[in-house]
Amino acid sequence: MTIIGDLGEKAAISRLLETFDPDGNSGIGDDCALVDMGREYLLATCDMVNQETHIPEGTRGWLVGWYVTAINLSDIASMGGFPLGLLFAMGLPKDMDAEYLDDIARGMEDCCQAYGARVLGGDTKENPTITITGTAFGLVGKKDVMLRKGARPGDIVFLTGQLGNQLGWYKSGAEQDIESLLKVEPRIREGQILSQSGAVTSCIDLSDGLSTSIHHLRKASDAGFELEMEKIPFISGLSDEDKERCLHLGGEFELLFTSDPSKAQGLMASGLGGLKLTAIGRVMDDSTVHIVVDNNSQALEDMGYEHFRER
Amino acid sequence: MTIIGDLGEKAAISRLLETFDPDGNSGIGDDCALVDMGREYLLATCDMVNQETHIPEGTRGWLVGWYVTAINLSDIASMGGFPLGLLFAMGLPKDMDAEYLDDIARGMEDCCQAYGARVLGGDTKENPTITITGTAFGLVGKKDVMLRKGARPGDIVFLTGQLGNQLGWYKSGAEQDIESLLKVEPRIREGQILSQSGAVTSCIDLSDGLSTSIHHLRKASDAGFELEMEKIPFISGLSDEDKERCLHLGGEFELLFTSDPSKAQGLMASGLGGLKLTAIGRVMDDSTVHIVVDNNSQALEDMGYEHFRER
Repeated sequence: MTIIGDLGEKAAISRLLETFDPDGNSGIGDDCALVDMGREYLLATCDMVNQETHIPEGTRGWLVGWYVTAINLSDIASMGGFPLGLLFAMGLPKDMDAEYLDDIARGMEDCCQAYGARVLGGDTKENPTITITGTAFGLVGKKDVMLRKGARPGDIVFLTGQLGNQLGWYKSGAEQDIESLLKVEPRIREGQILSQSGAVTSCIDLSDGLSTSIHHLRKASDAGFELEMEKIPFISGLSDEDKERCLHLGGEFELLFTSDPSKAQGLMASGLGGLKLTAIGRVMDDSTVHIVVDNNSQALEDMGYEHFRER
Repeated sequence: MTIIGDLGEKAAISRLLETFDPDGNSGIGDDCALVDMGREYLLATCDMVNQETHIPEGTRGWLVGWYVTAINLSDIASMGGFPLGLLFAMGLPKDMDAEYLDDIARGMEDCCQAYGARVLGGDTKENPTITITGTAFGLVGKKDVMLRKGARPGDIVFLTGQLGNQLGWYKSGAEQDIESLLKVEPRIREGQILSQSGAVTSCIDLSDGLSTSIHHLRKASDAGFELEMEKIPFISGLSDEDKERCLHLGGEFELLFTSDPSKAQGLMASGLGGLKLTAIGRVMDDSTVHIVVDNNSQALEDMGYEHFRER
């Protein structure tokens, strides 16, 4: 017998795809599923969070609700979509404080309102531990949609915002750092600007960490990547060791994308409504991922967060 | 402190609606959420199942996958929709047999294929107990959509199929009866025929039991209902006590709907592709629900399945 703890999340997903997508042409594999709606695509995505894996002890309900909403909206953002709404399925223990549930709902509603979405409905069920699935859906023009596929050799690799905001919690496990871990800001408006710029050739969010995300782009685009460590926009005050760790940290939700070099200048100049935008590397004519550290180019392994694995 | 076990599912949902729908005009409350897409509505619905509440010990994986797919498709069916696809978020214990996961996936895929849907993507996460959320999407013409709202005094109340197929398991708890409990057949094609007939004034599925479903129609339509016990199509061999119990049994997935009496005859004559269709009562000019048993009209209470309550 093989248990899924031995497989790990990636191998488990591969097994699922043998059933759901035996020919490999279903389109499964982007941040959202795409459904053809004529001139637009319907985008649909779901993410489940649960108490044991995602919600540190002591997290206030509002933050739980915000988080499960924001990570779903982030998938809409990475494809350049306009959110239509969210559904929530909530598995809740019977002994949960009703006010905690109120707080979760408030966090969901506040996050939806902040990003032009709304809660459309849901399901509540009894469950031994708090387990909440959010499903977000949105629309994007067919010519605007950003996929993981499409990066071409010579393209510039960009990252929004900064890396390292969540490192504090990973290092300390302290309650005061939970806020920066879970108060995710999905890059909805930035994704829309990017998708409509016509400059972006591929895009993904960083939910499983930079190294995993860049390998997703590599596989989908069948291209190589070379990043430059010194260009990566880390928060200040990090040691070299911290920076290295941040390359693989799950739970960052910036957008990682590639742009045609002839349009990259215009993109930089236009800005993203004030959000920092940094060129961190380029797309290469091979199928490897490297990072240049102190003038040495070294392989960047896919070492982001993986469920089911021992940690 | 109030815990949600004291509130029960209905009161918990009411609390959630105070946050998500303070004005009561969001449209939340039908089997699916509706999103305006021009000439059509996008239908979206999610349902979560988990090992402790929904999946009896010994259930094969295929049946788990079929069930979570079918109950979501049933919500699309009750609004008359054409399924577009499903997303699945799976919370799985690390020590789960990988072949069991394969079987779950196969059940999902088989159910999708049986009803013209497809798996569009999903999410896998670690969880202490198997917890799976399905989200189904579909489309329905605006003029065709069937809502809980719309029943008018004088309308005929209809039920598809038969009641009582699942009673065996509830009475015995025996492994041999799990199949009839979970091999739900969503009434997709029947829902489409009904929605396009122009005869239906309101519709719902029986997921929480006949008594709960009819009270949902009552509240949404602001109308009364009178059912006739002797007309209700129970499976054969049930005692009076069994029949009474079946009125409140959650997990039946037939369609309960009302029809304009002038069109009911045509509906009966056309048939539903072979599925039994029975007139079981009529819509009244008050706001109560009654059932006539042996010439006595008695109140039919809302006593269907409710999560969080002690059972």
